[in-house]
Amino acid sequence: MAEPFAREYDAMCRAIELAASPGVPLWPNPRVGCVLLAPDGEVVGEGYHHGAGTPHAEIEALAAAGDRARGATAVVTLEPCNHTGRTGPCSQALIEAGVARVVVAQRDPNPVAEGGLEVLAEAGVDVEHGLLAEDAERLNPAWTFAHRNGRPFVTWKFATTLDGRSAARDGSSRWVTSAAARRDTHVLRAQCDTMLVGTNTVAVDDPQLTVRDAAGEPLPVQPLRVVVGNRDIDADRRVLDDVAETVHLRTHDPLEALETLYRDHGRHHVFFEGGPTLAAAFLKAGVVDEVVAYVAPMLLGSGKSAVGNLGIGTIGKARHLDLVDTLVLLPEDGDGDPADTDINLRLVLRPRQED
Amino acid sequence: MAEPFAREYDAMCRAIELAASPGVPLWPNPRVGCVLLAPDGEVVGEGYHHGAGTPHAEIEALAAAGDRARGATAVVTLEPCNHTGRTGPCSQALIEAGVARVVVAQRDPNPVAEGGLEVLAEAGVDVEHGLLAEDAERLNPAWTFAHRNGRPFVTWKFATTLDGRSAARDGSSRWVTSAAARRDTHVLRAQCDTMLVGTNTVAVDDPQLTVRDAAGEPLPVQPLRVVVGNRDIDADRRVLDDVAETVHLRTHDPLEALETLYRDHGRHHVFFEGGPTLAAAFLKAGVVDEVVAYVAPMLLGSGKSAVGNLGIGTIGKARHLDLVDTLVLLPEDGDGDPADTDINLRLVLRPRQED
Ligand SMILES: NC(=O)c1ccc[n+]([C@@H]2O[C@H](COP(=O)([O-])OP(=O)(O)OC[C@H]3O[C@@H](n4cnc5c(N)ncnc54)[C@H](OP(=O)(O)O)[C@@H]3O)[C@@H](O)[C@H]2O)c1
Ligand SMILES: NC(=O)c1ccc[n+]([C@@H]2O[C@H](COP(=O)([O-])OP(=O)(O)OC[C@H]3O[C@@H](n4cnc5c(N)ncnc54)[C@H](OP(=O)(O)O)[C@@H]3O)[C@@H](O)[C@H]2O)c1
Ligand SMILES: [Zn+2]
Ligand SMILES: [Zn+2]
Repeated sequence: MAEPFAREYDAMCRAIELAASPGVPLWPNPRVGCVLLAPDGEVVGEGYHHGAGTPHAEIEALAAAGDRARGATAVVTLEPCNHTGRTGPCSQALIEAGVARVVVAQRDPNPVAEGGLEVLAEAGVDVEHGLLAEDAERLNPAWTFAHRNGRPFVTWKFATTLDGRSAARDGSSRWVTSAAARRDTHVLRAQCDTMLVGTNTVAVDDPQLTVRDAAGEPLPVQPLRVVVGNRDIDADRRVLDDVAETVHLRTHDPLEALETLYRDHGRHHVFFEGGPTLAAAFLKAGVVDEVVAYVAPMLLGSGKSAVGNLGIGTIGKARHLDLVDTLVLLPEDGDGDPADTDINLRLVLRPRQED
Repeated sequence: MAEPFAREYDAMCRAIELAASPGVPLWPNPRVGCVLLAPDGEVVGEGYHHGAGTPHAEIEALAAAGDRARGATAVVTLEPCNHTGRTGPCSQALIEAGVARVVVAQRDPNPVAEGGLEVLAEAGVDVEHGLLAEDAERLNPAWTFAHRNGRPFVTWKFATTLDGRSAARDGSSRWVTSAAARRDTHVLRAQCDTMLVGTNTVAVDDPQLTVRDAAGEPLPVQPLRVVVGNRDIDADRRVLDDVAETVHLRTHDPLEALETLYRDHGRHHVFFEGGPTLAAAFLKAGVVDEVVAYVAPMLLGSGKSAVGNLGIGTIGKARHLDLVDTLVLLPEDGDGDPADTDINLRLVLRPRQED
């Protein structure tokens, strides 16, 4: 690799590292990092976006570089923005600072923001994109997915006994999983911007659908709560409390529901917690992008199935998934429930692409 | 630890190691090792039992020691036998060789063999037992269990989709598990002396219930095949072929069936492969000692449940199991079935003792 390109490669690795700095929230904004290189290759400025309402990565790097930004190369994980949001467009700021070249990893998949590279090129800035693009996309997988597909990425989480039951015959399901597994679920919920369930789960289980810490306290930032189905939600349901916002989508079309969440509510990552009927509908509609299964080492022999009817009649038509992760959850202190002494498994799976 | 006892401890470790020598079959005989120590602590003979029809461990060690057995200490993993089977009783052989002291780990739980230590003591030999007894028992867990409980140890194996189905709605179940998982099952079958299923599995699936190698060839030694239930077995069923022996037990009492297998057929370890109805009966009778679950990463949404009705109505009555092992089975070459590209999990669980 010729010298300047090797330096830009190193700078992009560093920009990705900056973007992934600890403490940066996964939503609503993408994580972005930027490194400014002087013509001799010296790093004259670094920056990353710290989350919604704070300066963009490029602005932070330009501020660090000051006058030394003139003639420099900006190495950025994401195409500089070209719209005026809470901050001015970064493409304009780079031009005004006299940056000579801009190297971008991922092009902005967001239709509202697109065009930053074109604006820079028209202003005479040397532009390039695609360097470490896949690595940069992995900084914001759900955000990227949502803008590309016009709907949020869907993680479907379910809890099941070893024999595929989500509740006993009398409907009781507290608890199938251990305290450790339930805590782990809150960690996963916190990575998503939306919680989603069907009307019947709200009617039967009355879940609060909030993200809580290990002590049970709600986190300051909460995902949007979404209930799907035509039935009214009883006013006494906990999903209607004021800990988080709630949207009721009166539809049976999973894709329509998801497109609404993207278009009208800016949602990128749905954590979908069932029940079995709505899960079957989402699976049949092909809008489950990731499956998180908590498997409890217990047998019930009867009771509610973890997954509703998928219209599959024969083994050749089974939905195959790719197992991508297995985690053993050792017991932690709980409220004394028998399930709390169980070892649970957390399996992460992805729908097979050939299907 | 005083010198001679430290030497006996070391000798017992070595005897356990000898007993577990590669190639020694797990059944029908227990695995046994023996070390002979001269009064000065020198090892003058070692031996282990190589399997039914070959000399016992003590006899092999005495042969190795020759005249040097006189006045020696015999360190043996299992109480020397006191009956005349295919070989003469070992207790008598030790007395005749002039052994001065016998240190035993595990006392013989087999009622037919018991009494070796008493005979030795009466002949003036210094006897002791209990040294590393638990470690020695682990050489022959099923054998020990069977003699203590008057029935074989039961390993219940089942295959399930992630949503708890063992077959699709039309009854098809070839294949739920991958070729790698099916091969792994044969490795586990080979460790047992008995294969057991219900009459309906024979009627519906027509399994051969033999142990086959990776190429599909039956091994030279086959477990006993057992079918439980009152219905006749159709003469064309593969379970009646001449690759292995078959016993039909016309009963619905799991304990009675198992006691018959111990008493009349000398069986110590049953590999029980279902179906769900008989599995539920075994679980309810409390005679499932180990559970091996192959979990396939697929969803069916309907079809036959992996476990039949256990009479459990509410979550508080769920059967909790202790997860003792998790194995990830990567895909191996198969016959081109979609299941063969799946990653399967093999979970090993034990019924919780408090239950
Ligand atoms: N183990 C777990 O992980 C887990 C998770 C959640 C729930 N659960 C259990 O599951 C049970 C509730 O599950 P559920 O299956 O009865 O209810 P659900 O899936 O939460 O809700 C079903 C309802 O969703 C609405 N809906 C929206 N789109 C639909 C579509 N395309 N097709 C069909 N229905 C659609 C319908 O309600 P409308 O009539 O209002 O239109 C339908 O009755 C509870 O017992 C709960 O304990 C278990
Ligand atoms: N996924 C797996 O691991 C797996 C393993 C095996 C089978 N299967 C599937 O399971 C299905 C067959 O299972 P199944 O449950 O129908 O049959 P099963 O459990 O193999 O046999 C049931 C029969 O066992 C007899 N039986 C003996 N003791 C009993 C008791 N205490 N209680 C009740 N019945 C007793 C009865 O037959 P009598 O009328 O003759 O007395 C009963 O009809 C097949 O579709 C097969 O594909 C799956
Ligand atoms: Zn910007
Ligand atoms: Zn013997």
